[in-house]
Amino acid sequence: MYRSHNCGELSASHIDTEVTLAGWVQKSRNKGFIVWVDLRDRYGITQLVFDEDRTPKEMMARAEELGREFVIQVKGKVIERASKNPNMATGDIEILVSELTILNESKLPPFTIEDNTDGGEELRMKYRYLDIRRNPVKNNLIFRHKVTQAVRNYLSTEGFIEVETPYLIKSTPEGARDFVVPSRMNEGQFYALPQSPQTFKQLLMVGGMDKYFQIVKCFRDEDLRADRQPEFTQIDCEMAFIDQEDILNAFEGLTRFLLKEINGVEVEKFPRLLYDDAMRLYGNDKPDIRFGMKFGELNAVAQHKDFNVFNAAELVVGIAVPGGNTYTRKEIDKLIEWVRRPQVGALGMVYCRYNDDGSYKSSVDKFYDQEDLAKWAEATGAQPGDLICVLSGDKHKVRAQLSALRMELAERLGLRNPKEFAPLWVMDFPLLEWDEDTKRYHAMHHPFTSPKPGQLDLLKTNPGEVKANAYDLVLNGNEIGGGSIRIHDKETQALMFEYLGFTEAEAKAQFGFLMDAFQYGAPPHGGLAFGLDRLVAILGGQETIRDFIAFPKNNNGRDVMIDAPAKIDEAQLKELSLKLDLKA
Amino acid sequence: MYRSHNCGELSASHIDTEVTLAGWVQKSRNKGFIVWVDLRDRYGITQLVFDEDRTPKEMMARAEELGREFVIQVKGKVIERASKNPNMATGDIEILVSELTILNESKLPPFTIEDNTDGGEELRMKYRYLDIRRNPVKNNLIFRHKVTQAVRNYLSTEGFIEVETPYLIKSTPEGARDFVVPSRMNEGQFYALPQSPQTFKQLLMVGGMDKYFQIVKCFRDEDLRADRQPEFTQIDCEMAFIDQEDILNAFEGLTRFLLKEINGVEVEKFPRLLYDDAMRLYGNDKPDIRFGMKFGELNAVAQHKDFNVFNAAELVVGIAVPGGNTYTRKEIDKLIEWVRRPQVGALGMVYCRYNDDGSYKSSVDKFYDQEDLAKWAEATGAQPGDLICVLSGDKHKVRAQLSALRMELAERLGLRNPKEFAPLWVMDFPLLEWDEDTKRYHAMHHPFTSPKPGQLDLLKTNPGEVKANAYDLVLNGNEIGGGSIRIHDKETQALMFEYLGFTEAEAKAQFGFLMDAFQYGAPPHGGLAFGLDRLVAILGGQETIRDFIAFPKNNNGRDVMIDAPAKIDEAQLKELSLKLDLKA
Repeated sequence: MYRSHNCGELSASHIDTEVTLAGWVQKSRNKGFIVWVDLRDRYGITQLVFDEDRTPKEMMARAEELGREFVIQVKGKVIERASKNPNMATGDIEILVSELTILNESKLPPFTIEDNTDGGEELRMKYRYLDIRRNPVKNNLIFRHKVTQAVRNYLSTEGFIEVETPYLIKSTPEGARDFVVPSRMNEGQFYALPQSPQTFKQLLMVGGMDKYFQIVKCFRDEDLRADRQPEFTQIDCEMAFIDQEDILNAFEGLTRFLLKEINGVEVEKFPRLLYDDAMRLYGNDKPDIRFGMKFGELNAVAQHKDFNVFNAAELVVGIAVPGGNTYTRKEIDKLIEWVRRPQVGALGMVYCRYNDDGSYKSSVDKFYDQEDLAKWAEATGAQPGDLICVLSGDKHKVRAQLSALRMELAERLGLRNPKEFAPLWVMDFPLLEWDEDTKRYHAMHHPFTSPKPGQLDLLKTNPGEVKANAYDLVLNGNEIGGGSIRIHDKETQALMFEYLGFTEAEAKAQFGFLMDAFQYGAPPHGGLAFGLDRLVAILGGQETIRDFIAFPKNNNGRDVMIDAPAKIDEAQLKELSLKLDLKA
Repeated sequence: MYRSHNCGELSASHIDTEVTLAGWVQKSRNKGFIVWVDLRDRYGITQLVFDEDRTPKEMMARAEELGREFVIQVKGKVIERASKNPNMATGDIEILVSELTILNESKLPPFTIEDNTDGGEELRMKYRYLDIRRNPVKNNLIFRHKVTQAVRNYLSTEGFIEVETPYLIKSTPEGARDFVVPSRMNEGQFYALPQSPQTFKQLLMVGGMDKYFQIVKCFRDEDLRADRQPEFTQIDCEMAFIDQEDILNAFEGLTRFLLKEINGVEVEKFPRLLYDDAMRLYGNDKPDIRFGMKFGELNAVAQHKDFNVFNAAELVVGIAVPGGNTYTRKEIDKLIEWVRRPQVGALGMVYCRYNDDGSYKSSVDKFYDQEDLAKWAEATGAQPGDLICVLSGDKHKVRAQLSALRMELAERLGLRNPKEFAPLWVMDFPLLEWDEDTKRYHAMHHPFTSPKPGQLDLLKTNPGEVKANAYDLVLNGNEIGGGSIRIHDKETQALMFEYLGFTEAEAKAQFGFLMDAFQYGAPPHGGLAFGLDRLVAILGGQETIRDFIAFPKNNNGRDVMIDAPAKIDEAQLKELSLKLDLKA
């Protein structure tokens, strides 16, 4: 036994107890006649004391030499502290050390092991094992554990069975790029790492497993944007003999449970928004509804005047910024600059002050009188004291631009409170989306998603308008989960593959096993997958998923700590019947 | 809602209730005037009844057409069954159907969906989704879920934190062959899939995580023996500030909990056996101690007579087969044939009958008198009525041979009761083992295992004799877990790499990050990993791990259901800067 107690549990009730503790030296203060050492482990910090009256000289000397992050073991007596620290769980006591053992020394760490470290991102990643000693990272990992335990216990209680699906599967050309794994035993052939266990969970439904879940790593070889990881974790779920309503209820239940269990927050029944309405009202399929600033479409009230910019636009749309009329002219100019940044891409912004006296002052007063502007206020729900911001142009682009502006303003106004949780369902997503690169429609969700009843024929004539039995769960402006009711009959599935441009041979080669399975009594089924990394980050009130992953990769997909990926031996390549064919 | 109840929950208390059920047609019996259908789902089977008095003609006709594995939904009233079936949870009732909906049809399945199916292994693998509908497979998967939930809840309660470690890591030449994953973003470089999260869990200990676990997939690209899978699941655990005793207690606690919780079996404190003793007494480092038949070494009592076979042997060793004296001469000859099979490899077998009257009759009476043979009986613990079987030869070989014979005889004698559980610790494994192929010592466990205190110097002179702080947990003759106390100081670790034949540069390239980490205050730590597939199979009272894996691979590492691995597109290879370099 290296310790009788941990560094977080001793209190006044232990006074006079002989204890053994072990941990890291957080810091020490040497007053000459007395040395205090903060001893740290996962559970907390306990103060050790050595003083010239009570500590043997030899030990006093060793205590003075203890460096930061030395690993030590001490025996001693719990005594009352002279100056108590009420901000510390163990702040009432300290340990008068009678035995000191140095278990391991430490070089000076490359950054401070403090909540606010002086270490930069790259350095912290290289020495991630030191970064994990810091409370913020350590607590995030413990928090993640609590969330996954809560998820597993909830779903198990609800009758879901966790089934492990394989990691070495088959590459499919649909969707994102696969990571592949050359097979040595099957020369010239490759496994792929799963982007999700989609087909396997459907096969489990065909297999009668009824309610399945799995917390599982998934892999996508995509060019990494900030806060994307090549490997990420899903809470993957599927149910049979259900309709959409059953799924929404089941996973609303899980989410509500987590919010209560983890965050102590009770939420009402989740609002539901059609995809089309989400786009219309928020310019976004994952709206943050912790705050208002809904879009007001102004075509009817702002077009057919003499302002040609608006007249030529497909969409004129505005939002009311609460209390925005306090913005100075200079501040508004800066806002206009902001929307014109390439990342947002607007050409300009029209604004209208709604004064406290009920009058309006817009940047386009030449074209619009007070009565016109009152209609803008009505459409955007503006109140006296607000600022109305209006963008115009191509419908899709302008919605995205105004959505970005809405989020930016909410951030500045402090409306994105990480302790507040506003979940909602966004439903009836389009089945297909047009891809400019390949000039064809792709499945928006995946090719197993069922179209809305009665819309199958529309696929032939207006594929872009077909809606799917697909839904996303959105929390605070983030998609935390998404799913769909699947196709479960072979004919519809074959038709889908056809519409998606698969030849029969391609469909058979890629998904033959699924279409085979559908011949043997597939039940109606559907499911949902949560992005665990994102979910945990949001429940933790933070933005960055990387801080909730023990050993994340950087934006080049590298693990800078272990220095992977790396070259492999020629012999290893040869065994795999592969040769490098470098571009340079 | 597709159903109001499932197919396993209705009983006499529901009589007269209107219910909706959905599931698969297990079978139907058509008596002309009456049709019974067994409706199956994950939860059970409920009998449906259609009869010409109470069922509309049109529905009767459709009921008669229902084929096996059709997916149907029925509404109807729960009624009392005329002839009750006490062997069935729902055997008191049946459903008089008032509405019948066919949700999906089914082709005749390629094998029967029964507990005892007519489907062969290969066919069942190809249609695994149908195999999963069968109770034995379905129940195994549910059993696995229960075990993993129990493990997670136990370890969480004990303060362990589940931390996900990365799947895309770095290839290391030590140990088994890695699966590698070419990186597109880092041209010419490869990730490897982890054989275990060994180094990461050690880094988590350096990071102060204190108690870690993870239920995690691991990967080994080895030539597959029967019942090995290229991907397998570990319960991976690590603790800091512990000694060997703490680890043994912690995981003995987990195992005892599982045996109680899952199997309802209480076991005593686990016996402990030194590796050397396990080899001496059972010829095996994972002895099945559900039964006796311990080895008796006979060198002292059987050598230096005129029997040259024994005199020339390094080891003469026997076991007493309980009640074996009933074997006929012919049966004993067959046993001799059995030990001479190439899989066992003995040259012959000497036997000695211990008659009920206390006399002995051996196959080598020419050389040994009754007094000699009495010593054999004493050494092997034989009782009157037993048969003593004796093998001789090279120590390592003869132990393996006699161990095989011991297991075979126990099997024949019905001593390997799958409902009985006999765990034990095997301890103090050798640190190194000699590899004939490479003519050097390899780490028996892995290069991070610490030698027994004070034995480091022995490494230079007698490396084969150095024992490690390494232990295996053995259950019913299977290694279900293994672990060690790790090296935690940089100097010893560097020394180990040196002894294992790594140059300093190689050690740095492969494990530099770990040795770096050891400079910053690594705590004493150690751990254990359970093989989950094997553990679950044994707790489930079965031998084959494949039956506890939802989608296993065959002995060529192929998933015959999805037909993976498979060829990939030329374009995909090109993106990865790879070319095939086929041997043929």
